[in-house]
Amino acid sequence: MPKISNRPGTGKKPANRRRSGDGIADRDTPLIRNCWYVLDWSADVEHALKNRMVLGHDLVYFRTKSGEITALQNRCAHRCFPLHRSTLHDDDTIQCGYHGLTYATDGKCVKVPSAMDLKPRGIRLQHYPVIDRPPMVWVWTGDPEKADPGLLPDYDWVNGDDWGYGKGFYHVKGNYLAIHENLMDITHFQFLHGAALGTPRHAESKVHVTVKGNTVDNYRVNEGEPVPQLHQKATGLSLETPIIRHAHSTFVTPGFHDALGKFEDPAGTNNGRTEYTPRILHFITPETQYTSYYWWIFARDFKPGDKRLDNTYSRRTAQVFEEDKDAIEWMEEQWAKEDRPDFRESHVPSDEGAVKMRRIVHRLAREQD
Amino acid sequence: MPKISNRPGTGKKPANRRRSGDGIADRDTPLIRNCWYVLDWSADVEHALKNRMVLGHDLVYFRTKSGEITALQNRCAHRCFPLHRSTLHDDDTIQCGYHGLTYATDGKCVKVPSAMDLKPRGIRLQHYPVIDRPPMVWVWTGDPEKADPGLLPDYDWVNGDDWGYGKGFYHVKGNYLAIHENLMDITHFQFLHGAALGTPRHAESKVHVTVKGNTVDNYRVNEGEPVPQLHQKATGLSLETPIIRHAHSTFVTPGFHDALGKFEDPAGTNNGRTEYTPRILHFITPETQYTSYYWWIFARDFKPGDKRLDNTYSRRTAQVFEEDKDAIEWMEEQWAKEDRPDFRESHVPSDEGAVKMRRIVHRLAREQD
Amino acid sequence: MPKISNRPGTGKKPANRRRSGDGIADRDTPLIRNCWYVLDWSADVEHALKNRMVLGHDLVYFRTKSGEITALQNRCAHRCFPLHRSTLHDDDTIQCGYHGLTYATDGKCVKVPSAMDLKPRGIRLQHYPVIDRPPMVWVWTGDPEKADPGLLPDYDWVNGDDWGYGKGFYHVKGNYLAIHENLMDITHFQFLHGAALGTPRHAESKVHVTVKGNTVDNYRVNEGEPVPQLHQKATGLSLETPIIRHAHSTFVTPGFHDALGKFEDPAGTNNGRTEYTPRILHFITPETQYTSYYWWIFARDFKPGDKRLDNTYSRRTAQVFEEDKDAIEWMEEQWAKEDRPDFRESHVPSDEGAVKMRRIVHRLAREQD
Repeated sequence: MPKISNRPGTGKKPANRRRSGDGIADRDTPLIRNCWYVLDWSADVEHALKNRMVLGHDLVYFRTKSGEITALQNRCAHRCFPLHRSTLHDDDTIQCGYHGLTYATDGKCVKVPSAMDLKPRGIRLQHYPVIDRPPMVWVWTGDPEKADPGLLPDYDWVNGDDWGYGKGFYHVKGNYLAIHENLMDITHFQFLHGAALGTPRHAESKVHVTVKGNTVDNYRVNEGEPVPQLHQKATGLSLETPIIRHAHSTFVTPGFHDALGKFEDPAGTNNGRTEYTPRILHFITPETQYTSYYWWIFARDFKPGDKRLDNTYSRRTAQVFEEDKDAIEWMEEQWAKEDRPDFRESHVPSDEGAVKMRRIVHRLAREQD
Repeated sequence: MPKISNRPGTGKKPANRRRSGDGIADRDTPLIRNCWYVLDWSADVEHALKNRMVLGHDLVYFRTKSGEITALQNRCAHRCFPLHRSTLHDDDTIQCGYHGLTYATDGKCVKVPSAMDLKPRGIRLQHYPVIDRPPMVWVWTGDPEKADPGLLPDYDWVNGDDWGYGKGFYHVKGNYLAIHENLMDITHFQFLHGAALGTPRHAESKVHVTVKGNTVDNYRVNEGEPVPQLHQKATGLSLETPIIRHAHSTFVTPGFHDALGKFEDPAGTNNGRTEYTPRILHFITPETQYTSYYWWIFARDFKPGDKRLDNTYSRRTAQVFEEDKDAIEWMEEQWAKEDRPDFRESHVPSDEGAVKMRRIVHRLAREQD
Repeated sequence: MPKISNRPGTGKKPANRRRSGDGIADRDTPLIRNCWYVLDWSADVEHALKNRMVLGHDLVYFRTKSGEITALQNRCAHRCFPLHRSTLHDDDTIQCGYHGLTYATDGKCVKVPSAMDLKPRGIRLQHYPVIDRPPMVWVWTGDPEKADPGLLPDYDWVNGDDWGYGKGFYHVKGNYLAIHENLMDITHFQFLHGAALGTPRHAESKVHVTVKGNTVDNYRVNEGEPVPQLHQKATGLSLETPIIRHAHSTFVTPGFHDALGKFEDPAGTNNGRTEYTPRILHFITPETQYTSYYWWIFARDFKPGDKRLDNTYSRRTAQVFEEDKDAIEWMEEQWAKEDRPDFRESHVPSDEGAVKMRRIVHRLAREQD
């Protein structure tokens, strides 16, 4: 495991701990290594070198001519030159831009131009397991022996004709758990997002928390209020139509959160339709201990083939999710101020799911050491 | 006391110590907590949330509907959200912009929207003593039990009809003692400010230092030179008129310096007037160990009702005091270079007052621990 | 020796070590103090105060009225004010811009304006040995007793009529040894600089390494390829003319590298001329542990009086050497990422000279402690 705190690259150092109570993971808890994390959009990986840091591992990656995706350590074994600033040849080898050492897709050095008679057996780059499952690409930075493809969450349905979706991506200056926690307690809708996602009494609806293995589901039902503004035009449900709003917020893995909603309109106001399902996939990848990547897919089963609606969801959701990004970064700034070393978070009832999730992450972190 | 050194927020870490000799405070001496410090201009605090860090305490503050000023810890007790980015209601409660926890002016949480039946007894924000004494607002970040209003310096006279004033404010990237020291030794006038404040032989005038309790007064008289340029037009005294220039520079508290001058013109050149009194109030507040706020009021008893002259003093003094700000920041940069760990300041006779002030601060720091 | 790591001024902290093997200097090896390093171009030092940090020593320097160059500690002994922001008088004294303390060229304080009767015997600035040997000025920040002018490299020939030259300067965000190493292994020509300096099989030419005392010379001969593009127009040799290309890359001191080439054209294609000599002087000065200055002079014995050609060489070489600067800074960024604490450099045969150089520097560092 690379040492990723206290790094010049982030301009941050570990500030005071959250002191959330015993057994609850916080921003300083070691990252969970043995887990699949999203690396990129599948469609954005072509036969060209790209660079991204994942869990503190600096990676160079590309799609080979035959279509697989390769991820390698992004520093030449010779003098540390960054390989994403080097040359990708047609035979899928990377040639270092400094002295020309050349690497195959498995990370082995296959050529040293200044010593053509040398068999560079001992020179190799670390190679990382990758799975290309559109629309996402996943990478594994932990123990390669444990990189079981069966651990990937299932979201193939999103590619089907019954679904349309908008999407987006952020780099977030905050610990990845703050993104998860944001999703686990949606009582923030009304206060952070206002009418776009919230309704006046939404925060008061009861939450039911279910833990299964390492997953945590929050389920709440809100009755007697309309759909939030974000969905009014797409569903055709008006502000005068009270609906039954179901919401599941599910922590699936440290890299993935699944948010499944259902708007029930028993009266069938809109041409008799009584159910509308929005489902948001949240892909969360730690870049470093205190910075993260955040991809999201906002899917819906209403007007699934409407490409203009896809764009509308991409654009309008981005506005709303930027408010989450801001909140997470502002909280990170507060933590970084270190002015209250004795600060302990207060927990309220709606934190139940988030705290259970953080207990699981705390245990996963302890077990991996 | 919060830990305020080594903080990402300042981008600074403690550099080498001043090594000024035993018992003399320097830039690394702990800040003096039990003291009133200026928080803001009174006129700039309205019914709106503001944010400022004082002695490493991050504060949110505002004026209530009934006119008092409230200062609280600027992080929600729940998840650390910055309260200055939240909502101030008409009933003077602050509602957190994330999950809606609501706080009264005494810092107690009075509402948790997601748990309306909950009495949030244990949830509260730190509350800070504040005094609104126009034109300044003061705050106390030390032991609240010791926040005696009687410790405030007296400057009510500045609001009277006999006085006019200009004013200004800086954020200074330097330790607050460097601002005090700048004021305690005005032999820098000629070298840093040139003709605006200095006269060729001003630095040679003898200084008389008087210590009373924890205050230190420097008094010097300069004879045979004219008033400095800054005051020529306002006083009507010309470059050909030698005056007797009296100057008191008084360290009153770690948060306040009082500079009282007198220009004597025995000949009554200007319509028979023989005395002119400028008086500058310096309000100095540590933001962190190595950064400070600096407010000043440049008062005068000549042409007190002349509002255009007030503006002229604001503008022209700002030009001069920016030179002090630059000097302090440049010295701070030199210290930060850490290239001379063995460097010890040399003291010269005109440092007497400054060194005595620094001895007092050293003692105050030791006594508070 | 000042402590120059972990300094706010550089925004860097020591990252993981190169772990290059025992006895081999790397970016964390202490800087070699007892050595001459270039301070500036001689023509750029006039009767005006300049500032530069060399090996972590912050210097103020200027040319006196009588023509010598003086370098002193850049902080007033009184209150640390930066002297390069002060006044240089016609009598070659520096008067501090804060309280007017005045220093002679030997660093002694000769005047304290606020205490004219004081003999400021004990107040002085550190004085640094300087040699002005055009076109360069050299400074010595180590033990002054060891500052032997005989240790300066000889490059007076560059001022003669037989030579013309272009020149340039960079501030490099990287350790000075990375600049040396870049020069010691020119197999990077083809990969980093392409056709400007490289030819397809240049990297394969054999290298002969010779160590004499603390100098290390790499010598290689490349046959059967044309001169690289940078020199084609100046030499008049075309892409169709295979030449014999000799190259010496010589580490002379930690502050100086000498690169002597020879293009042999036995056929005398261009008016019968059979030899062309380019010679590049590289002056390398650590600013701090992880930042450096880099001056270069690209001299030639062909068309030596052609001033337009001088400019062309300055401009075109700058384009090429910026690629070296980029490579060094990119590698420094990779090191700073600290993501591979176990990373060890792999060495290949063409590193022989660089590694021998680094062994010498390792020994010099050990001997100085």
